[in-house]
Amino acid sequence: MGGYSVPMSAVPTLRDVAVHAGVHVATVSRALNPETRHQVNAETAARIISIARDLGYRPNALARGLRTARSTTVGVLLPDITNPLFPPIVRGIEEVLLPEGYTALIANTDNAPDQEEAQFTRLRQHHVDGFIVATARRDHPLLRRVRQEKIPLVLVNRTIERGGFTSVVADDTAGVTAAVRHLIDLGHRDIAFLAGPSNLSTALLRLNTFKRAAAELGVAVDGRLIERCEAYSEAAGDAALSRLIAGERRFTAVLASNDLIALGCYDALERNGLSCPGDISVIGFNDMPFIDKLRPPLTSVHVPHHEMGRTAARLLLKQIRDGLPRRGETVQLPVELVVRGSTAAVRP
Amino acid sequence: MGGYSVPMSAVPTLRDVAVHAGVHVATVSRALNPETRHQVNAETAARIISIARDLGYRPNALARGLRTARSTTVGVLLPDITNPLFPPIVRGIEEVLLPEGYTALIANTDNAPDQEEAQFTRLRQHHVDGFIVATARRDHPLLRRVRQEKIPLVLVNRTIERGGFTSVVADDTAGVTAAVRHLIDLGHRDIAFLAGPSNLSTALLRLNTFKRAAAELGVAVDGRLIERCEAYSEAAGDAALSRLIAGERRFTAVLASNDLIALGCYDALERNGLSCPGDISVIGFNDMPFIDKLRPPLTSVHVPHHEMGRTAARLLLKQIRDGLPRRGETVQLPVELVVRGSTAAVRP
Repeated sequence: MGGYSVPMSAVPTLRDVAVHAGVHVATVSRALNPETRHQVNAETAARIISIARDLGYRPNALARGLRTARSTTVGVLLPDITNPLFPPIVRGIEEVLLPEGYTALIANTDNAPDQEEAQFTRLRQHHVDGFIVATARRDHPLLRRVRQEKIPLVLVNRTIERGGFTSVVADDTAGVTAAVRHLIDLGHRDIAFLAGPSNLSTALLRLNTFKRAAAELGVAVDGRLIERCEAYSEAAGDAALSRLIAGERRFTAVLASNDLIALGCYDALERNGLSCPGDISVIGFNDMPFIDKLRPPLTSVHVPHHEMGRTAARLLLKQIRDGLPRRGETVQLPVELVVRGSTAAVRP
Repeated sequence: MGGYSVPMSAVPTLRDVAVHAGVHVATVSRALNPETRHQVNAETAARIISIARDLGYRPNALARGLRTARSTTVGVLLPDITNPLFPPIVRGIEEVLLPEGYTALIANTDNAPDQEEAQFTRLRQHHVDGFIVATARRDHPLLRRVRQEKIPLVLVNRTIERGGFTSVVADDTAGVTAAVRHLIDLGHRDIAFLAGPSNLSTALLRLNTFKRAAAELGVAVDGRLIERCEAYSEAAGDAALSRLIAGERRFTAVLASNDLIALGCYDALERNGLSCPGDISVIGFNDMPFIDKLRPPLTSVHVPHHEMGRTAARLLLKQIRDGLPRRGETVQLPVELVVRGSTAAVRP
């Protein structure tokens, strides 16, 4: 701290800095803005910066936002922050945004289009400089509109079919293929698949990959063993597996389209007196936190959500600075099957 | 939609609304602002509002923030959104703020004072109307300064000793007492306690409650069975219980100051070939999501984090509207012991 004295409770203004520096307010403004600093004598600028720091002067971000038409905020649309998938994505986004002076505004949509529209409008009112969107549905009129308005936008985790969006996704194909191969290596031939909601890109891709991988590895895919979940949730997974258990077609393993669905499988198995992996092997997708401590620890496909968030934030900042790319790029991050206690060799 | 035609890609302005309504821009401005609407003929105001809606006009929240000296944003300081404790608090906060037109800006501090200071400064630059703070330490110079500046602020989950802060906490005393009584009812007499970091209010309160409750229930508290954790984390819990296991004093149960520390206990027990609850019973605190599916399911004290967030948001909005209370109030929410598979009767 220097020798300047201001009352503790006062918020120092540009004018206070000018008075202490003995220069005009406009000079202070030019010196503190990196883009106009060269207009001020270097020594004077350094002195002004030092005095501003000593006084604890904070530029007014709102006013600066109006001047430069930038708010240095970014809107992040998520289905639900209490889904353990999303906190690591948010941390990744924040880690990249913060050092660049940007703040993330988080909004939960609960996958409800009207709530998403309301949140989106609200974020627009805050003049966010762009959006990172984890709520994409395969067909998404709202986001198509955003794109027509040339607003910087990056999709994360899920994508939209066609439309040239920039997106960051996991290599779901490799993940599902590795999971199917693991089950077949363990001797399973009667493998059930619990698909996610049909309006989500990840659900369709994982389902199609399951069918193709099973067929390629010489296992017949039985349509009666494919069940659709209403949502990526425990309750939906429980309901879907319960329907399969009640059906006549037997199976020895189930591949769930995500970890929450797999957790629902645990509930359904227990209620029906079936053991995992003794009676039925279960595999999830995402490798969300703490599933290594489940009963049994869940075999799952690890998705680098933290890195996904970082990558999405980097791509968005690039759009904000350089303008929208002519064609959206898709960044696909590698995944890894993590084998734990929920999968075992089929009973002889 | 009405019959007005504007290019899809244009963002309609106040001026566009005025042109379509055939009135002056100032009239539109008055009609759209609830506080000045009475200055405009009611029929005209209704027509302007309808046209603005049809055109998709969005008021400029930044400019409005400058005019009213309110940003309608609230800063939320958290240690780490990937700690499963905090997403439900954030959802609760958001549920109350959203219908009132407020947006939460979330910032992670990782419990590091310099990072907290930087995040705080950044949120001030965005002119947040107040703060909800989950990062309170027992002595917290930064937050004392905020209070001196008369900035609306509510503490959640943790409190600061003295200083008259408004805070929302759980009834930790009732929770720890119920946990100790449960262990004693199961026949445990040699009970270890893993305390949280000593600079946090929850850690001190839970430790003191443990000592008092055990003594009151007729169980001698052995100082050698109390171990301090560096952080509320799995790794710290693992390290602390490992130290106790390596010590000479035997115990049959451990009460962990939070669930993450309890998860670390699971790791330490497994590495040392001890079973839970066969050899050692374990109790956590918080009842965070999915611990009912752990191996074994964790007995824990349920804390209503979602309601905590809602209550904090309500108290903060009250401060923003009515000014700071003369004396801070403390709202204490009830908790409940949830008994699961990690606790069992002591071996005969």
